Amino acid sequence: MDPSQSAPHQYVLTLSCPDRPGIVHAVTGHLFRHGGNILESQQYNDLDTDRFFMRTVFALPAVESSFEVLQDGFDALAQGFGMRWTLRDRSQRRRVMLLASKFDHCLADVLYRWRIGELPMEITAIVANHPRDTYRHLDFDGAPFHYLPVDQGRRHEQEAVLGSLIENTQTELVVLARYMQVLSATLTERLAGRCINIHHSFLPGFKGARPYHHAHARGVKLIGATAHFVTADLDEGPIIEQDTQRVSHHDTPADLIRIGRDIERRVLAQALRYYLDDRILLNDGKTVVFAV
Amino acid sequence: MDPSQSAPHQYVLTLSCPDRPGIVHAVTGHLFRHGGNILESQQYNDLDTDRFFMRTVFALPAVESSFEVLQDGFDALAQGFGMRWTLRDRSQRRRVMLLASKFDHCLADVLYRWRIGELPMEITAIVANHPRDTYRHLDFDGAPFHYLPVDQGRRHEQEAVLGSLIENTQTELVVLARYMQVLSATLTERLAGRCINIHHSFLPGFKGARPYHHAHARGVKLIGATAHFVTADLDEGPIIEQDTQRVSHHDTPADLIRIGRDIERRVLAQALRYYLDDRILLNDGKTVVFAV
Amino acid sequence: MDPSQSAPHQYVLTLSCPDRPGIVHAVTGHLFRHGGNILESQQYNDLDTDRFFMRTVFALPAVESSFEVLQDGFDALAQGFGMRWTLRDRSQRRRVMLLASKFDHCLADVLYRWRIGELPMEITAIVANHPRDTYRHLDFDGAPFHYLPVDQGRRHEQEAVLGSLIENTQTELVVLARYMQVLSATLTERLAGRCINIHHSFLPGFKGARPYHHAHARGVKLIGATAHFVTADLDEGPIIEQDTQRVSHHDTPADLIRIGRDIERRVLAQALRYYLDDRILLNDGKTVVFAV
Amino acid sequence: MDPSQSAPHQYVLTLSCPDRPGIVHAVTGHLFRHGGNILESQQYNDLDTDRFFMRTVFALPAVESSFEVLQDGFDALAQGFGMRWTLRDRSQRRRVMLLASKFDHCLADVLYRWRIGELPMEITAIVANHPRDTYRHLDFDGAPFHYLPVDQGRRHEQEAVLGSLIENTQTELVVLARYMQVLSATLTERLAGRCINIHHSFLPGFKGARPYHHAHARGVKLIGATAHFVTADLDEGPIIEQDTQRVSHHDTPADLIRIGRDIERRVLAQALRYYLDDRILLNDGKTVVFAV
Repeated sequence: MDPSQSAPHQYVLTLSCPDRPGIVHAVTGHLFRHGGNILESQQYNDLDTDRFFMRTVFALPAVESSFEVLQDGFDALAQGFGMRWTLRDRSQRRRVMLLASKFDHCLADVLYRWRIGELPMEITAIVANHPRDTYRHLDFDGAPFHYLPVDQGRRHEQEAVLGSLIENTQTELVVLARYMQVLSATLTERLAGRCINIHHSFLPGFKGARPYHHAHARGVKLIGATAHFVTADLDEGPIIEQDTQRVSHHDTPADLIRIGRDIERRVLAQALRYYLDDRILLNDGKTVVFAV
Repeated sequence: MDPSQSAPHQYVLTLSCPDRPGIVHAVTGHLFRHGGNILESQQYNDLDTDRFFMRTVFALPAVESSFEVLQDGFDALAQGFGMRWTLRDRSQRRRVMLLASKFDHCLADVLYRWRIGELPMEITAIVANHPRDTYRHLDFDGAPFHYLPVDQGRRHEQEAVLGSLIENTQTELVVLARYMQVLSATLTERLAGRCINIHHSFLPGFKGARPYHHAHARGVKLIGATAHFVTADLDEGPIIEQDTQRVSHHDTPADLIRIGRDIERRVLAQALRYYLDDRILLNDGKTVVFAV
Repeated sequence: MDPSQSAPHQYVLTLSCPDRPGIVHAVTGHLFRHGGNILESQQYNDLDTDRFFMRTVFALPAVESSFEVLQDGFDALAQGFGMRWTLRDRSQRRRVMLLASKFDHCLADVLYRWRIGELPMEITAIVANHPRDTYRHLDFDGAPFHYLPVDQGRRHEQEAVLGSLIENTQTELVVLARYMQVLSATLTERLAGRCINIHHSFLPGFKGARPYHHAHARGVKLIGATAHFVTADLDEGPIIEQDTQRVSHHDTPADLIRIGRDIERRVLAQALRYYLDDRILLNDGKTVVFAV
Repeated sequence: MDPSQSAPHQYVLTLSCPDRPGIVHAVTGHLFRHGGNILESQQYNDLDTDRFFMRTVFALPAVESSFEVLQDGFDALAQGFGMRWTLRDRSQRRRVMLLASKFDHCLADVLYRWRIGELPMEITAIVANHPRDTYRHLDFDGAPFHYLPVDQGRRHEQEAVLGSLIENTQTELVVLARYMQVLSATLTERLAGRCINIHHSFLPGFKGARPYHHAHARGVKLIGATAHFVTADLDEGPIIEQDTQRVSHHDTPADLIRIGRDIERRVLAQALRYYLDDRILLNDGKTVVFAV
């Protein structure tokens, strides 16, 4: 069979660079000359920083060599503009590791969405500081599970194992699906821009333990959640997605926790979906999210 | 004409007291014996503090004397239960003072809703630290306007005038409709539970000036507003109402300010509407809002 | 051990009757005289129909006999007011049957919430027109499964089996968790007020097959879902809960279906939660929902 | 003064055409060669219809001649691709006519937003079928008012006057701000894609008079509003924007009408804002809205 006859492949290109006239023209010209057909494209000019961001989905006729040629040529173009860029075959699924603790609502939700095809990814590992039996009701559907308990005196060792696992499994993205352990600065820096966390958010904000109890004591009328990239500065990394829901004086701390679970799982799933489709670009301490 | 033949009057009773069996039975019994017909009733038992809250709307046949008798008798009952309570003829409009600064979006919105009958109140005064001409496009429809400029060295004097005005006009509620001046601790204490403020809210929160610029710099995906009772602790009083709206990286600080205006005016209007219908009860540092 | 020493039991009383003065006084008096301590109470006077609705949660000291006495006495009181009423020991879980078809997002979500204690119920059966293997990734955790395929010529027979199963398992509530089969008028009448369905909803509405494709073709900017009691008039029964979510021209029919899954499962879960806590009262063709 | 020294002008280009490779490359090349600097750009490929949509904001150095040259050259390019396109100097405000009836909440809201600079437009006329005195509390701030009463037997004549007014004032957009009169098919066709209406929307939908009463009778838990382009088929034109808000059994028809006012005015203002910034492109019977 002639490979040029098979179905076209889709690719996602993302890039950012200092803004100047001619970027889009150059990029689209390159794609055009190599037979690329643009299916979807979004761009953003940050007028504060004069930085330009772009995400383009394009199709190529399925001639194996054409993509290599396009990619090689793009490298030269990108250097000319000082671009940070990624170019990915959309059919190659991102390799994702899920970290969980005792509460499994985010883990269960991500697994369900993965199974029915909402989240196109390879799960490289499910890691938890609780044993497999804690999640006995969840079907991991073949995804490898690793029990890495955290012994207070030996945090460093546990994290070394975790770090090796990330490397050995060629994990691209680490998802903290209510993983209630703090990662070291070393690890968070290594995972910059590829480790997503979900946490509760309130107006006004609260620090410290038992946040839903604090929110209840303060009598808030809304509770929320934030998905963000993890940085060494806890809960302060670039924000990817947020949502809130109304509550009232009737809601007990237990009610807030229940409502919070719903917000957390849908905000995390949305952030993950954006990541898997290359929709999140880093812009200094914040994000450009080319949401659908 | 026999007054007993005229249409029945509606009254709103609100109360709170330490919880114990028999409160509702005693209250409804009192209303029942005096010919009261309950139209609407809400109650809340705070299981944390063992405090009970109730709001009841009832109608009485329009015999002038009956209300006085009912009210007098209720006082005895209330003392027995250690109640804080209010009883108001629903046709008597609350006396409200509006304070504004340069930005008039909340003022304009409250005035419009008042004019079309959404906010049943008497406006005792509109007070601003800018002259009448600043609001030349707004029809105050007969509401008296007072220009009370704030001279940094003479804040105390301006506030004294404001305080007298509140007293002389028998103002029950003061609304800070984007009034960008801080009230003294003395005045806020005097107005405890009857002074409502509206301010922007973010996840995470920001302190200080130019909050929308901070929110933009932080890359938030939601902005919000909070209406609360004013206390000496700035922006920390009991929360009445909150709302949020989605934003994105596309939104400039100017966009956030524009979107913020919409949230601010609708959150303030809602809080005011609750107040005017006696739907807000204070519960220590928070509120019980018997929302429709 | 003296049973009177054990923890108090909680009960939920719901009632509706023609409105007239004295109902709350009579009800609370009855509870008071039998040692009931009200923990939560909501009422609603429908001024259109002059009908009164009430839901009360109260605690009784754990003397076995006291509840019987209270219940017997209430019957007499209820007859005097022409009440429809229910009185339930809150610790007795509702018996619920789940019906599903091929798409299992609602089923999976309900099962997860049930397992972590969000939905206090006994699952009497999971019934599907697809075999057990279709749901092989779902842990039914002991809930009995029944495969009842629908053979077009033999709908009647399938429904007869289903009807018997509902009866034999003492099922109180039937949940159509995306059960894509129409129930007969006979069965829906038998299940009046105790069969909940979830379906997509749009503005404007669409009839017929492939609704998300229609919504896409029409270019709607919001999609939604409605949970309602099932009646013979398809998708027109009393509405319990609704929600919507924004969509855009970017969203394909597949995206709408994905977003719809999220709305459907959270709307159904909310409706079910209301039902299990006796928060839904029927008011002619609509509902009174005493939401938290 | 040398005009080439003055501040650059901004332009908005919108276009749609059959999709094919090379469109973006050609368009950006044309802008690039004429000194255009792209500030914002959005595009959409409708994979159902194979039609391509684009909106681009760009700046030109303020040499008067350059825009003319760019525009002329673009015409040739556009013909080659079979484009429908618009190109507008962003500083030239759209000419908008507002039509209102008795209820002025949308009119008042649009006027307020216009006055504070949220809606950059020229108001060519305010037209109503009620006299000026109906809106005596509104400051039209110089916008001409026309009282065009609708006499049932003489609809045709009133509409002829309206049609002339639209033409004579070079009105580009007509906004039906709760204008409760039906326009003829002739006029709606003449105004295709440049006449926006706002109307209530429910799930399920209702036809006919007193829609909020119907919604109340049906017991809906959400009410909404839709802004759409007007077509001969009443309330069925391309949807621009929609929103909903929660309601409950407590809400009377009057409450629904009040809540509806809020939704209507914010949905209409949003649709108008999109139009004024050339963000709405027609795509057969629906819209592509390049929302911020």
